[in-house]
Amino acid sequence: MTRIGVVTSGGDAPGMNATIRAVTRVAHSEGLEVLGFERGWDGLLTNTFRMLTPRNVGGILHLGGTILRTSRSPEFRTVEGVQKAAETLALNNVDGLVVVGGDGSLRGALELSKMSDALIVGIPTTIDNDIFGTDETVGFDSAVNTAIVEIDKIRDTANSHDRVFIVEVMGKKRGFLALTIGLTVGAEVILVPEVEYSLKKIVGTLEENDAKGKKSGIIVAAEGIGDTHKLLREIEEKAGVEVRLSVTGYAQRGGNPTARSRLLANLFGKKAVELLLNEQGNRMVALQEGKVTSIDLKEVCSNEKQLDLSLMKLAQTLAT
Amino acid sequence: MTRIGVVTSGGDAPGMNATIRAVTRVAHSEGLEVLGFERGWDGLLTNTFRMLTPRNVGGILHLGGTILRTSRSPEFRTVEGVQKAAETLALNNVDGLVVVGGDGSLRGALELSKMSDALIVGIPTTIDNDIFGTDETVGFDSAVNTAIVEIDKIRDTANSHDRVFIVEVMGKKRGFLALTIGLTVGAEVILVPEVEYSLKKIVGTLEENDAKGKKSGIIVAAEGIGDTHKLLREIEEKAGVEVRLSVTGYAQRGGNPTARSRLLANLFGKKAVELLLNEQGNRMVALQEGKVTSIDLKEVCSNEKQLDLSLMKLAQTLAT
Amino acid sequence: MTRIGVVTSGGDAPGMNATIRAVTRVAHSEGLEVLGFERGWDGLLTNTFRMLTPRNVGGILHLGGTILRTSRSPEFRTVEGVQKAAETLALNNVDGLVVVGGDGSLRGALELSKMSDALIVGIPTTIDNDIFGTDETVGFDSAVNTAIVEIDKIRDTANSHDRVFIVEVMGKKRGFLALTIGLTVGAEVILVPEVEYSLKKIVGTLEENDAKGKKSGIIVAAEGIGDTHKLLREIEEKAGVEVRLSVTGYAQRGGNPTARSRLLANLFGKKAVELLLNEQGNRMVALQEGKVTSIDLKEVCSNEKQLDLSLMKLAQTLAT
Amino acid sequence: MTRIGVVTSGGDAPGMNATIRAVTRVAHSEGLEVLGFERGWDGLLTNTFRMLTPRNVGGILHLGGTILRTSRSPEFRTVEGVQKAAETLALNNVDGLVVVGGDGSLRGALELSKMSDALIVGIPTTIDNDIFGTDETVGFDSAVNTAIVEIDKIRDTANSHDRVFIVEVMGKKRGFLALTIGLTVGAEVILVPEVEYSLKKIVGTLEENDAKGKKSGIIVAAEGIGDTHKLLREIEEKAGVEVRLSVTGYAQRGGNPTARSRLLANLFGKKAVELLLNEQGNRMVALQEGKVTSIDLKEVCSNEKQLDLSLMKLAQTLAT
Repeated sequence: MTRIGVVTSGGDAPGMNATIRAVTRVAHSEGLEVLGFERGWDGLLTNTFRMLTPRNVGGILHLGGTILRTSRSPEFRTVEGVQKAAETLALNNVDGLVVVGGDGSLRGALELSKMSDALIVGIPTTIDNDIFGTDETVGFDSAVNTAIVEIDKIRDTANSHDRVFIVEVMGKKRGFLALTIGLTVGAEVILVPEVEYSLKKIVGTLEENDAKGKKSGIIVAAEGIGDTHKLLREIEEKAGVEVRLSVTGYAQRGGNPTARSRLLANLFGKKAVELLLNEQGNRMVALQEGKVTSIDLKEVCSNEKQLDLSLMKLAQTLAT
Repeated sequence: MTRIGVVTSGGDAPGMNATIRAVTRVAHSEGLEVLGFERGWDGLLTNTFRMLTPRNVGGILHLGGTILRTSRSPEFRTVEGVQKAAETLALNNVDGLVVVGGDGSLRGALELSKMSDALIVGIPTTIDNDIFGTDETVGFDSAVNTAIVEIDKIRDTANSHDRVFIVEVMGKKRGFLALTIGLTVGAEVILVPEVEYSLKKIVGTLEENDAKGKKSGIIVAAEGIGDTHKLLREIEEKAGVEVRLSVTGYAQRGGNPTARSRLLANLFGKKAVELLLNEQGNRMVALQEGKVTSIDLKEVCSNEKQLDLSLMKLAQTLAT
Repeated sequence: MTRIGVVTSGGDAPGMNATIRAVTRVAHSEGLEVLGFERGWDGLLTNTFRMLTPRNVGGILHLGGTILRTSRSPEFRTVEGVQKAAETLALNNVDGLVVVGGDGSLRGALELSKMSDALIVGIPTTIDNDIFGTDETVGFDSAVNTAIVEIDKIRDTANSHDRVFIVEVMGKKRGFLALTIGLTVGAEVILVPEVEYSLKKIVGTLEENDAKGKKSGIIVAAEGIGDTHKLLREIEEKAGVEVRLSVTGYAQRGGNPTARSRLLANLFGKKAVELLLNEQGNRMVALQEGKVTSIDLKEVCSNEKQLDLSLMKLAQTLAT
Repeated sequence: MTRIGVVTSGGDAPGMNATIRAVTRVAHSEGLEVLGFERGWDGLLTNTFRMLTPRNVGGILHLGGTILRTSRSPEFRTVEGVQKAAETLALNNVDGLVVVGGDGSLRGALELSKMSDALIVGIPTTIDNDIFGTDETVGFDSAVNTAIVEIDKIRDTANSHDRVFIVEVMGKKRGFLALTIGLTVGAEVILVPEVEYSLKKIVGTLEENDAKGKKSGIIVAAEGIGDTHKLLREIEEKAGVEVRLSVTGYAQRGGNPTARSRLLANLFGKKAVELLLNEQGNRMVALQEGKVTSIDLKEVCSNEKQLDLSLMKLAQTLAT
């Protein structure tokens, strides 16, 4: 192992830059050269990269986004695309590749590992936390904190107006963000894609709260639960209360990473380089039982991480 | 003048609590009693208030929302409603009333001043900054800062993905928020309700930027400019680029006030009490040429504050 | 178990209020009454408490400090003091007590458990993270994030002036805060009380960095490492560079808790009530291997949590 | 006027980068070339600069510090130093120079204007707000907000412990920061260098507050008032209460600028270029009566801005 590559792919997440820095500096301390492929898989398709050195990854630890930039690359989803990427790695004598990204990127990493002689290691980096095999992904904690700071502010208005708010948070398929955000802002109702919601139950909760003298409320809803505008109208109609909708948007993807996202980035970056040095490819770095470890990429891609539904019940108890 | 009232009305804004505290403590230092009417005009319609003292307004200076709560009161918009409010003031021997709120609240204050013997003084408190006669309102600076922190994060993602974002900010009728936010985040395009937008010009700007190598962009759009989803589709079609929409929501109304919003709250609160002590009613406290002064409420309500369109040009120059 | 008490003791930490809320609401959902003792152990010495209900712990989840207030109580450190506290519990028919605090508070809890029939359960809540048996304490993540936001700002000035800063962070005896903060801000040097520092090594690192073209630097030092003013003068003298000192102060103790501190507070609060319902006393709630569990209070108080010194090496590698 | 220079000098302040960007982009839009001298006056002494273009000042609007870096240059304080700087301007055919900085930098600008044919314009950029002739400087609002966010957190601890805190804020000679910070955090006592403090009066205020049931307190003290450690001991002794000291440090200088600092940077940058285009040198851009204007540099340097002491009285009334 003398030369490795690193690529950030898919949606950006806070801590991607910290991950790039950690991979680069740990690798250099072990005598490795590091190529940073640019604009996600596109960089592997077009052989576009820059040499990463301890110096030129300085000053990025705390910045959101990714200095390598990223993209969603349809071409890479074809066999020809993956083949071309494998050729780029061979052309540049890249012995190992660190893939930094979420669900789709890790699937891409698995495909690439089948066609390339280079060892491929994934680092789970996504605000969605929806990756099987790791308790947490780089970026998740940052996105949660961005959302709760925003919702704490909305709570001011909810309380001042005795009003109910639906706050739509990210999460098209999975409710990890919505559940953690809901638990930590004290949401009266949490709606996740994994559980079909019952309008009757929502309205029941709001009416119970009203009877207790709690006239405002926050409904945290993952974007994947359906049309929140429609939900708003339904609640207004059934419950006879004014409801407002606030969509926490793309800000959740950006911003300076929190300490925890930075720490995971550091630990994951180090682990990824160690795996490559030990000639272990086709794996994803992971956090399990509080410890940094790794897991087979195939296992990651063929399983689905489960939401802890017992937390939904706790959230209800805590929002009484 | 021995007894005054204070009421917060309309949409809440950061600094309302600071204003309540300032009015209460300055009034008490002058020997006045202070009644805090609850839930906006509703408190005057239903004679619901609490006595405010220096002690019970402690610990609220830095909090968003309003401890007196607020509401939009349709009944108050009728002659009978205003009459009832005037009677409540008389019933409680209230000699002066400080009305803390935005456009609608100040109009209400003017109506009430016609029917009540109590002297009425308004304090312009709204995130919209759309009040004639004052250069700035309490809450505006806070809302702007909440928005720019959010947009700075979105810029991370825009840059990482070479993507254009439309960021919809508050402002149904007026573009004060959008213009200041746009200028301070370096928006490539700013759209305000006061100026009809030209799709062609927007697309032209994006294309020019692209030619210069600036592939990402932020379009700050006031909510009042029309359907931003439609705008998104139009730009995507015409410019052939991917565009994302992020709606900065109600968080702009809440949250801890900035230093400037707190300072204005302090100065305006003091001025309002001074006006009442000098038996000057029917006025609004205002910031003019950097100084705290006051203006006739009638003048406030019969004029429209103008957006400084020269700043639109500056914004364009600065975003090249 | 029909009646429990809760007390916050020692230095305050972000998440204490969230913990009070969680204990109260979970307990009520199980039919328990909750007494909140005020001002730390003083409340048990003077029988000062208020009844906590789901309603009166509303709106505090996101607030720093503790609504029950806290104190350091010398009297409680005597046998008579502990005896009196035990009597207060008996007097009020308190069957279980949840002690929310750090090192000293948990020792107090252990002493009290020896003299009282009430079951005692501790919840580790301290910014210092120095409690044996739990991987993390409520409040630690918040303090770390407050510090890194501050140090990110100092880095701006360090870079602009090519200057070295010593940033003193909290931690009289232990370096958990300093180490995590140092790792997540990319500190060039991290100094902890557990490891005697070598002036020569510090100066060597700064000189190496200077040779690499890295002219600014951040030295994160726990307050317990000795006199940082003296250290500053020594470095200036030996290294011939200008050094500035910034002491991150008490702000680390306060402020709104982060998502992680809130989440731990929720989970720990629930676990504490469950232990009491299962008649398990003399225990501390803990996070171990990513899961919420509990541990014998005696074990907590007779062992010392170890700093992971391998992270010091990682920090060095990452700051090259 | 075909070629101008820009230099940032003295202590850095949030908004310096925004100012560099504004000067550069406005100048380019008028057909001017822009040289950015590096490391403050040192850049003029050593003829070190880079060409600034609209592209290479992109992405810096929201960043603290200064990309041109800064320094305090003893050599420039000599006649020979100023002479050399003037020669550098002549050598590079620089027709106008924008000096971005505080008190010392503006004095330097004045000296330089006497020896150089280039027109010199200053932009007041300092967190201290201590520049005669302008109501506000770029950076002041940012520093105030950084401090109040920190002090709001300290207030949590003060309240939880019924404790008095001295918070030392920046301001060696002048109390502008301390006064505005004190007013906006509701400090019980504000100490500024302009007014000698009376221990007796401080203790009296604390005792009065204690009698009113207000057991915690915040004393905001400018660093220039003397030894705050000593003050702490004196208060503890006289008042018989526990006092803690927290020194808000260099973080006030850094961090992303607030909206207001960015706006001033934009407006001041534009005005500076306009002055040069109108062949007006030897002036400083200024905010007066809410409007951007300019003032003779000599007048700036020969007068002292006065603190509005009436605000001290208001602060007292508001903190009752």
